[in-house]
Amino acid sequence: MEKRPYILISNDDGYEARGFQVLINALRPYCDIVAVAPDGPRSGFSTAFTAAMPISSRLIRKETGLELYACSGTPVDCIKLGLNRYCTQKPDLVVGGINHGDNASVNAIYSGTVGVASEGAMQGIPSLALSICDYSENADFSAVEPWLWKMVRYAIDMDMKPFTLLNVNFPKDTDIKGLRLCRKSKSRWVEEIEPCAHPYHDNKFFWLAGRCVELEPEAEDTDRWALTHGYISLVPTTLDYTNYEVLEELKAATAEGTDADL
Amino acid sequence: MEKRPYILISNDDGYEARGFQVLINALRPYCDIVAVAPDGPRSGFSTAFTAAMPISSRLIRKETGLELYACSGTPVDCIKLGLNRYCTQKPDLVVGGINHGDNASVNAIYSGTVGVASEGAMQGIPSLALSICDYSENADFSAVEPWLWKMVRYAIDMDMKPFTLLNVNFPKDTDIKGLRLCRKSKSRWVEEIEPCAHPYHDNKFFWLAGRCVELEPEAEDTDRWALTHGYISLVPTTLDYTNYEVLEELKAATAEGTDADL
Repeated sequence: MEKRPYILISNDDGYEARGFQVLINALRPYCDIVAVAPDGPRSGFSTAFTAAMPISSRLIRKETGLELYACSGTPVDCIKLGLNRYCTQKPDLVVGGINHGDNASVNAIYSGTVGVASEGAMQGIPSLALSICDYSENADFSAVEPWLWKMVRYAIDMDMKPFTLLNVNFPKDTDIKGLRLCRKSKSRWVEEIEPCAHPYHDNKFFWLAGRCVELEPEAEDTDRWALTHGYISLVPTTLDYTNYEVLEELKAATAEGTDADL
Repeated sequence: MEKRPYILISNDDGYEARGFQVLINALRPYCDIVAVAPDGPRSGFSTAFTAAMPISSRLIRKETGLELYACSGTPVDCIKLGLNRYCTQKPDLVVGGINHGDNASVNAIYSGTVGVASEGAMQGIPSLALSICDYSENADFSAVEPWLWKMVRYAIDMDMKPFTLLNVNFPKDTDIKGLRLCRKSKSRWVEEIEPCAHPYHDNKFFWLAGRCVELEPEAEDTDRWALTHGYISLVPTTLDYTNYEVLEELKAATAEGTDADL
C-alpha cells in the first residue's frame, strides 16, 4: 500500500452506534474517511434501497480526513449517496460495520452491514463487512480494535476480485484465538412470528422473532464453527448467486429430453 | 405430481398489483393457494425483514382453495408470516411475483420478488421468482400466462436442491422464443442519485434513479442475453454466497505464508 487509503464506510445500526464510532476511531490514523450512515437503526435491511420516496442527508461532522453524513435511507442508499455525491475519488475500500450482532451464516443474507459491502462490491470496489457476535449497544470492542486496521489493509492489498466482498465476524469472546478462512454455514430461523399485544386489536400485530438453528454444527470449515470456537470468521462472498451445479444438471436434463417439458 | 399442490405466494408490488392477480388466476385451477402480500409497493426491498416495529395483516379474500392476506411488512415478512401463521401444511412451493419489472442480472440482488423466493429457499421449500421485463402497471401478461402453470409444475417436479431457487424473467416481447437456462450476467447501476427539488430545502433531497449498464452484453449464456433476444431466462440461484474460488486462493496464500499477515 503506497498512499493513505481513501475509504467509504457505513453501517446498519445508525451513525451514532458505538461500533461505528469504534471503526472510525481505529481507522482515522491510517485512512481518509467518508462516512455516510443511516440516521437510526436499519437492522435487517439487507440490500434494500429506497424506491418509492426521496432520501435526505445532513452533514454531522467535517474535519481533516473525515466527513460524516447521516442519511434517511437504507444502508445501500448510503453507499449510493456516498459514491455519487460525497466521495471526491473512487474509494480504495467500502466498509460496513462494525455491526452489533452476528452476521455469519444465514444472517448475512438479511444483514444491512453485509448490504453495505455488497453495494460496494457491485460498484466494483473492494468491500468488507465487519460484525461482532454481540447484540448489546455496549458491546465490548477491546479485543476487536487491534484487528481493524490489519483487516482493512488486508482487504485493500489482496487485489480483491470484482463482485466479491469479505464478510468478517468477530466472536463475542475477548480472548480471540485467531482468524479462520471459512465457508458460510447452513442454518435456518424458526418460530419467527410472535404475537404483539395491542390495547384493543386482538391477534393482528406480530413481532419478527425466533431463533437460528444451525444445520451443520460439526462442520469445521464454516463461519459458525469458527465463531463458536473463539475464532474470527472470514467468508469470501460472491455476488454471482448462480448455482452452477444445478445449472449444469438442468442443462443436461434438457439436452437428454428428461426435463419437465419446458 | 400426485396431489394438488399447496403453494404460498407473495410479491413486492403489493397484493393489488396486476401481475399478482394474473398469477393467482393462472394457478387457481391447479393449486391450493395461500397468498400473503404487502399492502402496497415494496420494490427494492431485497431480503429485508422488519426488525424494529411490529407487522400487521388482514384477510382480504377467503374462498375454497384460496386465502389472501395483506401485510404491512416486507416481502420476506409476508413469507415468514405465511409459513408460521397461515399455512396449514408445508407448502410444495413458494412463488414470488409476477413482478412488474426486470429482476435479471444485478437487479435480482435488490429485488423483493427474488427476496420472497430466497426466504422460501431458506426455509427449505422449493422456490420460484417470476418477473416480466415491463415496469408498467398495465403490463401485458398474455404471452406469459401459458407458461405459469408449466413453470410451477417444473419447479415442484425437479426435486430442487436445498437453499436453491429459480429466478425466472419473461421478456417484454409478446412473441416469446422459448426458455433458456442461464447464469446471472454482470452489470452495474450508474448515475444513481438525482436531486429532488423541495419547496424550501435546497440540495437536501434525492431520488434513487440511474441506469443499469450491462458489462458482458455479448455473453450468450447470461440471463440478460436471453431476455434481449426474446427468450425467457431461468437462473438457478443459490443462497450459499461463499466465493469458493477466492476461499481456496486465500487458503493457499495463508498456507504459503504469502498472505497479508493475518
